[in-house]
This record gives sequence, structure tokens and C-alpha cells, in this order.
Amino acid sequence: MRAWETNVRRVVPYVPGDQPKGDHLIKLNTNENPYPPAPGVCRALREMEADRFRKYPDPSSASLVRVLAERYDVDEDQVFVGVGSDDVIAMAFLTFFNSDRPILFPDISYSFYRVWADLFRVPYETSALDEAFRIRTEDYERPNGGIIFPNPNAPTGLLLPLEDVEEIIRRNPDVVVIVDEAYIDFAGGMSALELTRKYDNLLVVQTFSKSRSMAGIRIGYAIGNASLIRALNDVKYSFNSYTMNMPSQILGVEAVKDEAYFRETVARIVETREWAKGELRKLGFSFPDSSSNFIFASHEQFPAEKLFEDLRKEQIYVRYFKQPRLDHYLRITIGTREEMEALFAFLKVYPG
Amino acid sequence: MRAWETNVRRVVPYVPGDQPKGDHLIKLNTNENPYPPAPGVCRALREMEADRFRKYPDPSSASLVRVLAERYDVDEDQVFVGVGSDDVIAMAFLTFFNSDRPILFPDISYSFYRVWADLFRVPYETSALDEAFRIRTEDYERPNGGIIFPNPNAPTGLLLPLEDVEEIIRRNPDVVVIVDEAYIDFAGGMSALELTRKYDNLLVVQTFSKSRSMAGIRIGYAIGNASLIRALNDVKYSFNSYTMNMPSQILGVEAVKDEAYFRETVARIVETREWAKGELRKLGFSFPDSSSNFIFASHEQFPAEKLFEDLRKEQIYVRYFKQPRLDHYLRITIGTREEMEALFAFLKVYPG
Repeated sequence: MRAWETNVRRVVPYVPGDQPKGDHLIKLNTNENPYPPAPGVCRALREMEADRFRKYPDPSSASLVRVLAERYDVDEDQVFVGVGSDDVIAMAFLTFFNSDRPILFPDISYSFYRVWADLFRVPYETSALDEAFRIRTEDYERPNGGIIFPNPNAPTGLLLPLEDVEEIIRRNPDVVVIVDEAYIDFAGGMSALELTRKYDNLLVVQTFSKSRSMAGIRIGYAIGNASLIRALNDVKYSFNSYTMNMPSQILGVEAVKDEAYFRETVARIVETREWAKGELRKLGFSFPDSSSNFIFASHEQFPAEKLFEDLRKEQIYVRYFKQPRLDHYLRITIGTREEMEALFAFLKVYPG
Repeated sequence: MRAWETNVRRVVPYVPGDQPKGDHLIKLNTNENPYPPAPGVCRALREMEADRFRKYPDPSSASLVRVLAERYDVDEDQVFVGVGSDDVIAMAFLTFFNSDRPILFPDISYSFYRVWADLFRVPYETSALDEAFRIRTEDYERPNGGIIFPNPNAPTGLLLPLEDVEEIIRRNPDVVVIVDEAYIDFAGGMSALELTRKYDNLLVVQTFSKSRSMAGIRIGYAIGNASLIRALNDVKYSFNSYTMNMPSQILGVEAVKDEAYFRETVARIVETREWAKGELRKLGFSFPDSSSNFIFASHEQFPAEKLFEDLRKEQIYVRYFKQPRLDHYLRITIGTREEMEALFAFLKVYPG
């Protein structure tokens, strides 16, 4: 080992789902939206002038912050934007989780939480979900340095009722509670956003990657009271003055503006999901009742890893987690009706 | 103070130059390139398909890494890319500067170094530049936890000769040495890149924001030996799996491909700079001899702050730093010949 290597921060990074390439594959493995971004996004892209790129972007991303504030009926100083919700959460860990007490999150949830805790050397403890994969609110009553959980949870898709979310926040007024709502738009109006008016320690994080069909553009945001957002921005501007590039700022605004398209595509995905639940049940699968854009499904006869591999041979990609309690399941993103039909056609004749 | 606020990381962020808006202003304050990005960038923008944005970008930015590796004649595993060189340097601080010993950098240099050190709680010591604003290599011989300096330096524009750069690296084999070459393309082939073959602890950081006219797109990169780059990537993937969005990846590739345009616009800026030096001298200004795309100029009769304000009234923006040793100077970005002529026309009749 070379001497300089002794001061290198050693981490085990998060592993995202594959991004296989090809035109004919069915990609149900990374919870992307099967529909294109809003028409206004395409229009703004066509009208974008490359000449402007020679200048720095607005460091505050003011235009994007403004439309988000309007859309969610909060003040502009209550909105923080970042390069995907991963960037937002990374900044939030760095900003808010500086206690000697452990932060708390569920043992089964977004696996990146552990990675951030390790990266920033934040002590943490996890609480086991119950046998039905539910978060037990009483697990979040012990002394802690902060709390984070996804709602709906991933990879289960299960929604924690809003009163339970509030219960966790109410019992933890002395730490920052982050509700990671990457999938909330598929859950039918169950966001904790309204609770930010009542609790100054609540930060709600959402993303453009799923419900707004903009995973490739990298936009996430957080909403909370102004002093939380100010602290987050101070850390962001101490990390990189200009995190969000011009295309993201310009295209992001258009995605928010087209509320009708947003509602329509979300409704279509929810409709496909509900139909897919019925099909999966008929095929003998069982799963927690999903409120997200994926279903976490298991089959008694079909070992999940084998099914995952067999699907891949057919160019159908789903996500498999080789981990205790998860390794009997496949996480299947809701694609278009046609994509789901191709999946079910395969499963109907699947020998196991 | 609310209880949760006791665990908030308090930082004093870096303050970037103003981004004033308007079509008729002359913006010489943030070292942007006065020429548009390469024609291939504009073409790729016009051909970009918004439909692709629904999917996640390639987390490794492989296409961009590939063209950079070809351009700089290194292996692909020697190239790290980030969201502007600020993002690259922030990741490098987090990855490499974890010693109890202080890191070292010049007292007058990129003011963000202090901000990152504070953010990540890295101890640091600065060394004073000499009376002519030169880095003294002997200042970098004491025990330390890492070294970073810009070359050419900012805001002075002064180039440290390559043999002095090598001297600093050679004397510090046990720590990572980062040479921040944001402005090196204006210095005529004086990059430390070739030294990465010889020193495994050297990381060279460059950017698309200046010489490639892409400040608004946010691309920076680092080149070094493969184990440095692997460590950097592990930290990046532990922070955010997908930092660089699709437009950056696509447009960045085109910017690198057009070597002729790159050389031509860089040559034009250097030519304007050399002419501007003569004009400034005639007007009674003095300045360190710049090898960058800006000139750090001072005038005996004109107090810098007053001149800064008077220029701003004329819609001519330059940069003024209200700091000891710097507050007699203005940092003037090299614009087009026409923009510089407008500046000089004003200065020629300036009453002071």
C-alpha cells in the first residue's frame, strides 16, 4: 500500500440497477417511467440555444424553484433543488445528521441510506420491518440523531399511512425527519408535504425521475421550513456553486408546468399497476400491496433468482436483490400495458 | 435555537460572481468564454431526443470518459468526470484529504478550497504567495495531509513553471497532490498531465467551463493513476449514482471531438489577452503576467472598488475581491475583441 492510500476514504458504493442497451428489450428494472417527458419538455429542448451554455447557470435555479413553490403552494425559500433526489439526500445527510446518536431507518428500504451513512461516518441503526414488510412506528421512539424512510417504501412499494408518518415526526421534534417520497405521486394524495406547515423539523424529498419521466435529466427537490432549506443551501453552495446545469433548469420548469400531462401519465401507470396486480395474482404471485410504480412479487414455485435470469434471456429486465428476506422476490417496474402483457405472456407458459 | 438545529453543519459558502441578466451588458466577471460551444455541440443539441430522458443516464458516463481518454492519451480508468470541476474537487477532498495533518494551499488562490476544508472538517494551512504573487515551492515541503493549488493561479493568472510543479509533487510522495488546471488551456502546453505517468499521487483537474465554452453544462474531469480514479469513483457512487445528466454526456462528447474549434477559440482568447495586456499597460495598469483567460489588474490612480462600481454603472461587469492584498485589483475576464474595446474606450476617458 502506498503511503497516500492510508488517507483515502474507503467506501462500498451503492449499486444501481443495470442500464442494458438495445431497442427491443423490456426494461422493468429501475423504476423508470414508460412514458416520455411532457410535450413542453420536448418543445423546450428543440428551442434551447447552445450559445447560452458558454455562461454559468443560475446558481440558485430560481426559475425551477419558483414553479415548484407555486405547484406545491409553499414559499420559494422552502424549496431546495438538487441533481436528483440522491444528491438532495446526500446533502441532507451532510447538513442534518451530525449527532453522536445513531440515525434510524428501516432495515429494508432504499439501500443507499447505509452507503451515505458510511460515506459521511454517520452512526446508524436499522429497525426490522414487521413480517408483512410494514414500518413499525414504535421503532422510531428511541433516542436518535435523525430519521429517514421512504414512503412508499422501496423495494416493497408499501405505503405508510399519513397518520403513522405524522406519529413518527411528532415523537421526534428534536431531530430532522426526512420522508423520501420518490414514489409518492403513485400513492394517490398521501404526501407528507402538508405536514411541513406544522413541523419545522420535517424535510420531504421528491424527484423528477419517476412520475415526471426525467430520470436522465437528474432533478430532485426537498420541501421544508425555510431554516432547514437555508442550511441545506449553505451546504450545497459549499460543495459546488452551480450544481444544476442549464438544460435541467430549463426542462425541469416545463415538466412542472404541464400538470395535465403529469396527472394523465401517473393515472395510466396506476391503472396498469392495478390491472397487473390482478394478473400476477392469477399467476400465483403474492406481493405487498404496492402504492408505487413497481410491484415486489414472489412466487412459491419459481425461485426468484432463476426467474430473474430466465426473464433476462428473453430481454425482459426486472430487479433482483440477493439479500436475506428479499431474495424470494422480484421488483417489477410498471411499464406500458404492452410491456406488462409481454411479461405476463412469458409467465403464463413459464415452466419454472 | 430549536433542538434539531444543534446538529446542523454550519458553513460559510463560497460566493460566486454575479450572473447579471440582460442582452447589452458586457460580462467580464466570471471567466466565461466569449465564444459559443463548438458547432458539434449545437448540432447534437438539435438532434437530442427528449424521449430518452425518461431513462437513467449511464452512471459511468462511459462515452465522455472514452473521448477524454483518447484526447489526453491515457487509459479510460485514469479519467474521472463530475458536474463541473467544483464537483470533482469536492469529491477529491472527501476522498483523499482524510489525514490529521493539515492540507496546504496558497493564501491567495481559488477561495473555494477553504470552503471545502471547512465543509469536510479538513485541517488546513495556507502559505503566503511572494510579493509578486508567486507560489514558493519551499512552502510545500513541511509535513502535510495533501496539497492543492491552481495552475495558472486564480485570481492572479500567474503560471507556476512545470519544473516547480514537479518539484512540489516530487517532494510529497506520501500525500495526494491536486493541480487544479481550470485555466491551463490558455497557458500554452504547460499542463502537468504528462506527470501523471510518473507520479501515482498526482491528480490533475480540468474543466469544460472555460476553454470549452460549456460553463452552463457543468463538466469537469480529473486524470490520474487508476487507483486514484477508482477511489474517487467509489466515493462518487456513494454520493450519487447518476451525477451527470444525459445532455451533459451527449454535449460533452461533441465538445471534445472538435479539436480544431477548441484550438481556434483558445488561440483567439490568448491573442486578445496579449493585445489587452498592451492596452492596459498604456492606460497605466499593472498586473501579474497572465497565462489564463483573465487579467488581474491594478491602477495607481483608480481605487479598484470605485472603478468596479463605475464600470458596473456602464453595464461592464468585472470581478472585485474586497480582501487584503487583492482589494487594489480587478479581475478582468478576456472577452471578445469588441468587448475589450468597449472596456478600454471607457477607461481611456475615465476620470478616476
